[in-house]
Amino acid sequence: MADIKTYLDKLNALDFSNMYGDDFFLTWEKTIDEIHATFTVADALRALREANVSTRIFDSGLGVSLFRDNSTRTRFSFASACNLLGLTVQDLDEGKSQIAHGETVRETANMVSFMADAIGIRDDMYIGKGNTYMREVSTALKEGFEDGNLEQRPTLVNLQCDIDHPTQAMADMNHIIHTFGGVENLKGKKIAMTWAYSPSYGKPLSVPQGIIGLMSRFGMEVALAHPEGYEVMPEVEAVATKQAAASGGSFVKTSSMAEAFEGADIVYPKSWAPFKAMEKRTVLYGEGDHDGIKALEKELLAQNGEFKDWECTEELMAKTAGGKALYMHCLPADITGVSCKEGEVAASVFDRYRVPLYKEASHKPYVIAAMIFLSKIQNPQAKFEELLARSVARFSK
Amino acid sequence: MADIKTYLDKLNALDFSNMYGDDFFLTWEKTIDEIHATFTVADALRALREANVSTRIFDSGLGVSLFRDNSTRTRFSFASACNLLGLTVQDLDEGKSQIAHGETVRETANMVSFMADAIGIRDDMYIGKGNTYMREVSTALKEGFEDGNLEQRPTLVNLQCDIDHPTQAMADMNHIIHTFGGVENLKGKKIAMTWAYSPSYGKPLSVPQGIIGLMSRFGMEVALAHPEGYEVMPEVEAVATKQAAASGGSFVKTSSMAEAFEGADIVYPKSWAPFKAMEKRTVLYGEGDHDGIKALEKELLAQNGEFKDWECTEELMAKTAGGKALYMHCLPADITGVSCKEGEVAASVFDRYRVPLYKEASHKPYVIAAMIFLSKIQNPQAKFEELLARSVARFSK
Amino acid sequence: MADIKTYLDKLNALDFSNMYGDDFFLTWEKTIDEIHATFTVADALRALREANVSTRIFDSGLGVSLFRDNSTRTRFSFASACNLLGLTVQDLDEGKSQIAHGETVRETANMVSFMADAIGIRDDMYIGKGNTYMREVSTALKEGFEDGNLEQRPTLVNLQCDIDHPTQAMADMNHIIHTFGGVENLKGKKIAMTWAYSPSYGKPLSVPQGIIGLMSRFGMEVALAHPEGYEVMPEVEAVATKQAAASGGSFVKTSSMAEAFEGADIVYPKSWAPFKAMEKRTVLYGEGDHDGIKALEKELLAQNGEFKDWECTEELMAKTAGGKALYMHCLPADITGVSCKEGEVAASVFDRYRVPLYKEASHKPYVIAAMIFLSKIQNPQAKFEELLARSVARFSK
Repeated sequence: MADIKTYLDKLNALDFSNMYGDDFFLTWEKTIDEIHATFTVADALRALREANVSTRIFDSGLGVSLFRDNSTRTRFSFASACNLLGLTVQDLDEGKSQIAHGETVRETANMVSFMADAIGIRDDMYIGKGNTYMREVSTALKEGFEDGNLEQRPTLVNLQCDIDHPTQAMADMNHIIHTFGGVENLKGKKIAMTWAYSPSYGKPLSVPQGIIGLMSRFGMEVALAHPEGYEVMPEVEAVATKQAAASGGSFVKTSSMAEAFEGADIVYPKSWAPFKAMEKRTVLYGEGDHDGIKALEKELLAQNGEFKDWECTEELMAKTAGGKALYMHCLPADITGVSCKEGEVAASVFDRYRVPLYKEASHKPYVIAAMIFLSKIQNPQAKFEELLARSVARFSK
Repeated sequence: MADIKTYLDKLNALDFSNMYGDDFFLTWEKTIDEIHATFTVADALRALREANVSTRIFDSGLGVSLFRDNSTRTRFSFASACNLLGLTVQDLDEGKSQIAHGETVRETANMVSFMADAIGIRDDMYIGKGNTYMREVSTALKEGFEDGNLEQRPTLVNLQCDIDHPTQAMADMNHIIHTFGGVENLKGKKIAMTWAYSPSYGKPLSVPQGIIGLMSRFGMEVALAHPEGYEVMPEVEAVATKQAAASGGSFVKTSSMAEAFEGADIVYPKSWAPFKAMEKRTVLYGEGDHDGIKALEKELLAQNGEFKDWECTEELMAKTAGGKALYMHCLPADITGVSCKEGEVAASVFDRYRVPLYKEASHKPYVIAAMIFLSKIQNPQAKFEELLARSVARFSK
Repeated sequence: MADIKTYLDKLNALDFSNMYGDDFFLTWEKTIDEIHATFTVADALRALREANVSTRIFDSGLGVSLFRDNSTRTRFSFASACNLLGLTVQDLDEGKSQIAHGETVRETANMVSFMADAIGIRDDMYIGKGNTYMREVSTALKEGFEDGNLEQRPTLVNLQCDIDHPTQAMADMNHIIHTFGGVENLKGKKIAMTWAYSPSYGKPLSVPQGIIGLMSRFGMEVALAHPEGYEVMPEVEAVATKQAAASGGSFVKTSSMAEAFEGADIVYPKSWAPFKAMEKRTVLYGEGDHDGIKALEKELLAQNGEFKDWECTEELMAKTAGGKALYMHCLPADITGVSCKEGEVAASVFDRYRVPLYKEASHKPYVIAAMIFLSKIQNPQAKFEELLARSVARFSK
């Protein structure tokens, strides 16, 4: 298996020692070596699975999924990642539990973790809450382990918060690297992360923030485009600006979709809610002001409606590099004339990119597994060699 | 283990090579050799489990269950089958996911299948929809595999659709074969698939259709009895007629329960909804016509009420061969005076057949496992010999 | 691993042969040897896991969880226990199934058990129902196994019924034993199981009943305190009285929280509903009398409100032995000023005992696993030696 040798060489050239025993919250908290180690481990795990070599490092153990809103993709990605490593997923649904009834974060974190090796949390609904909540869980788990209540400290994976969507952004980036034949080919390439119209309300900002917060680290020209009023968190813009400069690329903002698409090698048109409105919604929810929430929703849909021309059309695609930019989306997309009357993308554009879109998504389970693997395994290179030597068939044909 | 040798001999005499890599939709699409191979593999898997020999062929991997309506039995049967082979079940509940929000079948099929080796679908609610939906999923998975998005093509198992209920019919048939001491003893035996009164509304037609579509292949005399207005799909009747003739048996219709029971060796009295009403309901649901649905429901219950004498009583049982026909039901049954005031079967009849009824049900997990096994394993005989030689204990006592 | 040797010596000195093949319903149905065998096996399983030795005795198999009300803790404890032994949990949620629609206990028990090695049931809502239901399931499983429908007889574990909460009481007791350095140090120690005020309604009696029904077997002075009207089941009080006498301890009742706390080594202040009210509620539910239920709820909350001074305060804690009694709770607790305005315990008391409280809870998964293990494994000592010799890593680091 020549591939694995290549991955081992890559890992040997990287310093990712701090990932051992650590969680994965925000991509920009990780060094570029750590980011590349994650891609490399993801690719290595995939290569092993494709070669029918089992990558189970757990004989038993639980992966806890704590989702605060519904999700097919992320749920299955996390379940797949856990399964790949030998963990059994146990869902901590609020509906099924007593969490809503006054339990503290600290208590719950301990109670579900006696046999948990990993916990995936998705909490992207309220500005200022999701990431904070994850860090509280992480601290509680650290204490629980140190106090001897937990036999192991579960690795926490951010499956989407109010700030970042690291498993999505990392899967997306790995897709870009594979599509362009290596990270060394990305220097100077232009990626357009642009807002797009959707008839729905309140889509999270974590995707555009995750994209500019990660894609700005590879020397690319990152353009963020949105109508006025759809600003993302200024802290993340600051991160993108700084990283772009450091990597020899750029980060620019524009209020024109066409300008962002002009000469772009990659386009990522997607709807999101205005940051300020999300802040307001968080307050309204906190106050239990249902009339206020309804009024805000109506207002936001009306606001969205002013920008129906923010659609990824064939005309816009024609403006991209060679008319052939890589179209990306975290899915599901609002497709004009298919899933809605007017949406984020023209049906003909979306259809042309179906296969690449599914490939994009296919990286996510491996990225999540890599995050857990790197936190659990002190010497991944040795472990991969051991897995190859052990050579247990994933499927005994 | 003498049994396994018998199963291997049986398999060696059958041609089932086309099952490798294929799905299981409708029993009448399978050759009689393929049907027998499924029974034989089911029995062999059971023999191995009873001998405490692990039949895990997967070290890891997912079995996705996609249920469009509730079900304890089928859910547990699928979970048991997956567990027997080493797959972990991940439920794709519509309530838990975004499927209802405009996702396409193609997209969802790919998104849940990155690590899926099998997918079980139950979609029996709407005439003309369930089976069609499964085939769309199957096509999408084939494409996803060919496009390289999926590392494996998941096997699709029809856990009940609008046309057939193959895992039920196959489990039922295996129960008959075991009860009568072999398929060679079934020639000329009479089986009565009859409608029965139930105070509930809209039970699927897939059971009677599945029964006449399968039981007509073994040289038996198949009698279908129902009141006027409770016709099943004409296409399936045509299949039964053709198959009965080919197998040296017969397929007859009658509108008298007593006539069907007369001299029967096996009786299967069970309620179902009129096909035409189900078609109408599908249209009403499509139009979101809730008043129409309520009116239809009322009308159907009134229609059912005219046939309360369609009950499997002791008097009717006395008319069967030796008064001792094998009573069958897919469960749960509407038992007169127990689960309802007036139902499908008299309590004394049901009670006498409890043990055979549970035995009947016990075949289903193995039938499902056999369907997956035959799709995954190119040489089942060699695999069984390997499992025996490997001799891993299922339970290390 | 010196520890394991100690556990084997302990087991060798105990007679627990009747646990093999048996269920675990009520602690007082088990001999004191059987109780100690359960603690010892729980500790041994924990020692093995902490030493990274896999305790999987099942290569495949299902653990069915049948919960009739919500629960995070018990759900995760059962899932953890099953995972530790190699079983996959399959939930039998009433919402997901047809159980509510007239199925009989007998039928359901068989239908979910074709591959089930263990079933955990939580059914604590209705007086006179929960434990009865479990015994019906147990009988059905025994018959199903004897009739040949089931290949194995699943072990039934009572995860909380109307009478006892054995997994909680056993985890609590093991926590006490560990905290006091051995059961030999408990003679004459005083434990106060006392009612405490809560602003919520209808908490089950199974915890106080479980505590007095178990803690009275170790020569301790067991004091049960509650306001008039909050009596527990007289049958359980009789059990406690008899056991206390036999073990050289005592069981006393008082209507003063302060009196119970006086000189106590262990305090367990917790709210519960009045037994008579629970009986009344069971009748009202049976009659579907929703107005009656609402009225009862209101009445009970008003009744609770008369006893707001039943709070575990610093003043009360100061009355305990050295002012340092071990504070216990099954969690979640109603903490004054934290989870409610006025509750069971002062925030400062609760906070000081957080680590011991989580340790208390950490015993539960192992206690559940031990109950299953002792029912499944005829010679636990030999099995532990085998697991050590096999030495499969739980987590391959």
